[in-house]
Amino acid sequence: MKLANLSELSKDKQQEFLNSFDTVLTDCDGVLWLENQLITGADQVINFLKSLGKRIFYVTNNSTKTREQLIVKLKKLGFNAEPHEIVGTAYLAAQYLKKHLGSKKKVYIVGSSGIADELNLVGIENFGVGSDVLPSGMDYKNDYDQIKLDPLVGAVVVGYDSHISYPKITKAACYLTDPNVLFVATNTDESFPMGPNLTIPGTGAMVAAVKTGAQREPVIIGKPSKLMGSYLIENHNLDPKRTLMIGDRGNTDIRLGYNNGFQTLLVLTGDTTLANATAWSKSDDEEYKSRVADYYLPSLGHMLPLFGS
Amino acid sequence: MKLANLSELSKDKQQEFLNSFDTVLTDCDGVLWLENQLITGADQVINFLKSLGKRIFYVTNNSTKTREQLIVKLKKLGFNAEPHEIVGTAYLAAQYLKKHLGSKKKVYIVGSSGIADELNLVGIENFGVGSDVLPSGMDYKNDYDQIKLDPLVGAVVVGYDSHISYPKITKAACYLTDPNVLFVATNTDESFPMGPNLTIPGTGAMVAAVKTGAQREPVIIGKPSKLMGSYLIENHNLDPKRTLMIGDRGNTDIRLGYNNGFQTLLVLTGDTTLANATAWSKSDDEEYKSRVADYYLPSLGHMLPLFGS
Repeated sequence: MKLANLSELSKDKQQEFLNSFDTVLTDCDGVLWLENQLITGADQVINFLKSLGKRIFYVTNNSTKTREQLIVKLKKLGFNAEPHEIVGTAYLAAQYLKKHLGSKKKVYIVGSSGIADELNLVGIENFGVGSDVLPSGMDYKNDYDQIKLDPLVGAVVVGYDSHISYPKITKAACYLTDPNVLFVATNTDESFPMGPNLTIPGTGAMVAAVKTGAQREPVIIGKPSKLMGSYLIENHNLDPKRTLMIGDRGNTDIRLGYNNGFQTLLVLTGDTTLANATAWSKSDDEEYKSRVADYYLPSLGHMLPLFGS
Repeated sequence: MKLANLSELSKDKQQEFLNSFDTVLTDCDGVLWLENQLITGADQVINFLKSLGKRIFYVTNNSTKTREQLIVKLKKLGFNAEPHEIVGTAYLAAQYLKKHLGSKKKVYIVGSSGIADELNLVGIENFGVGSDVLPSGMDYKNDYDQIKLDPLVGAVVVGYDSHISYPKITKAACYLTDPNVLFVATNTDESFPMGPNLTIPGTGAMVAAVKTGAQREPVIIGKPSKLMGSYLIENHNLDPKRTLMIGDRGNTDIRLGYNNGFQTLLVLTGDTTLANATAWSKSDDEEYKSRVADYYLPSLGHMLPLFGS
C-alpha cells in the first residue's frame, strides 16, 4: 500500500514506522526550507531523529553550494548538522572526476563556483565559472575560428549556471566532440516553480542545451541516478531496507529511494503535489510508479506529533 | 530499393528519374552552400532544372534570415531565384502566428532578427532579439521578483539565438507557465559540425533548454514537421509523388520527404554521411527508416552529367 498519510496511521503503526529505519536521507530545498525560509518544524524533526541515534544525511542536487556553504545554511536555520552528513552533487562530481579524470587534465565548467570549489579541494584544475557572452557582432556560425579551446580539457561538468550562454554551450559541445572527454551533469531537475507565472529553469534545462548541441548523453551525478544511490550505500554502509528517503520531488527524491530499495516519504511543501503522486500511483508505467512514495505528509513538521509527548 | 547512387544508374534510369518530378524542394546550407561558399555545380543544377520548367522551392530551417536576405544570398551565389520560391522557418512562423495568435498579443522571441522582421511584416508586435544578460550579482533563484514580464505576450518563438542566455530561458519559461501562451520552435536541428573539434549548437539546443525549463512541448515549424509538409502541399498545390526533396540531413530533409510521400535525394556535402544512411537503412525502427533517401549523390553538382549534353 503506497502513499499512506503518516498522520492518519494508528499510534502503533506510527511507532512501527519510527522504528523501521536507522538512517535518514533528506532532500533540502522544498523539504527543510524554501529558498531562505525554514519550513516550520523541519529543524525540530531532523534534530529529534538524530537525538534518537538515527544517522542523518542531507542529500541535495544543488550544485551551487559547497558542503561548507550548506553547513552554514543548515546551522543558521537550526539544524544540528555536521560536514560529513552533507552529500551534494558538486562534491560528488569532484569525487567522480578524482577517480575517472586523467592526470594533468582540466575541467571545463558550465556551472557555478560550488563546483569549482569542490574541484579545487581535490586538486583538479578547472575554469569556465562566471559570465561569458558573445563579443558584439560575432556569431560563431561565421566566426568559428574565434572559439578558443584548451587542449588539456578532459571533462565537461554541467550544473546550475545563471550565466549559461551561447559561448558556453558552444565550447562545451566542442570539447565533447572528443569521445575521450568525460561529460558529467550534476543533476537534471527541470525547473523550480516560484509562484504564479514564475518558474526558474533548473539544471536540467542547461544540461538539455549542452547534450543536444553535443549529441552526447552525460553521466548524471545527482538524484535519481544509480551513481548517487550506490555512493551512499557503499560509502556510508547503508542498509537500504532500514533507510528512509525524504523528499518533495517524485522524479528525483522518491525515485532515488525506489531505485535503491529505501523507504520513501513525500512532503508536500515543494514540487510534487498529492494529485501528481496519486495520478502516478494509478499508472502502469514503471517510470511513474517509481515516483510514488510509501508515505506522505503535508510537511516535515507534521511528523512532530508522531513523537508522542 | 532505397539509397541508390544516382550516378551509377543506367542512362535510361537517370532519364526516368529526371522525368519523374516536376517540383524540386531543396535545402540550402549543406546542399547549395557551406556557410558562404557555393558547393560546386549546385547553381548550374538548380538553374538547369528550373529551365526545364520544374518548380523550385528553397526550403530551409534557418530562421536567422528573412526571405529577402536569402534571395540576396542565393542570387549572389548564382541561383536564379525568386522571392516566392523561398520557404523559411522565420516566414512560416510568422504565417502560423498570424493565424493563431490573438489580436493585440505580442510575441517574445528567443531568436534572431530574421524572426522579428517576418513578424513585423505581418504586423505582430514582438521583442526579445539581442543581448540579455543577468545583471552582475543577480540570480533569479533569489531575485525572482526582478523578472520583468509583459502581460500582453501571447506566444514565445524559439529559433537560432547566438545571444541565448539564462534571463532569456527564464523569461520564456515564465511566459509559458500560462497554457494559453503559444509555444513555437522554428526547428530542432541539433548542431552544425564545423570541423575537427568544432561544432556549433543548433536551434535544437536552444529549444531543448526552453522546453525543459518550461516543461512544455513546442509546435515545430521546420523540417521534418507535418506543418512544413502540409504548408508546402496546400499552398503550392504539390503532387507529392512528382515532388523531389533534396537535402543533406536524414532526420530533417529526408524525413520531411518520407513523411509527405515525396521522392528524396541525399547529398553527402553536409550532415549525414553515407555510413549513417546505410546504418539507418538496416534498422527496423520506423524513425530511422524514415531518414533513408531513395537516391544519393556525393554532391548536387554530381547531377550535372545526368543532363547529357
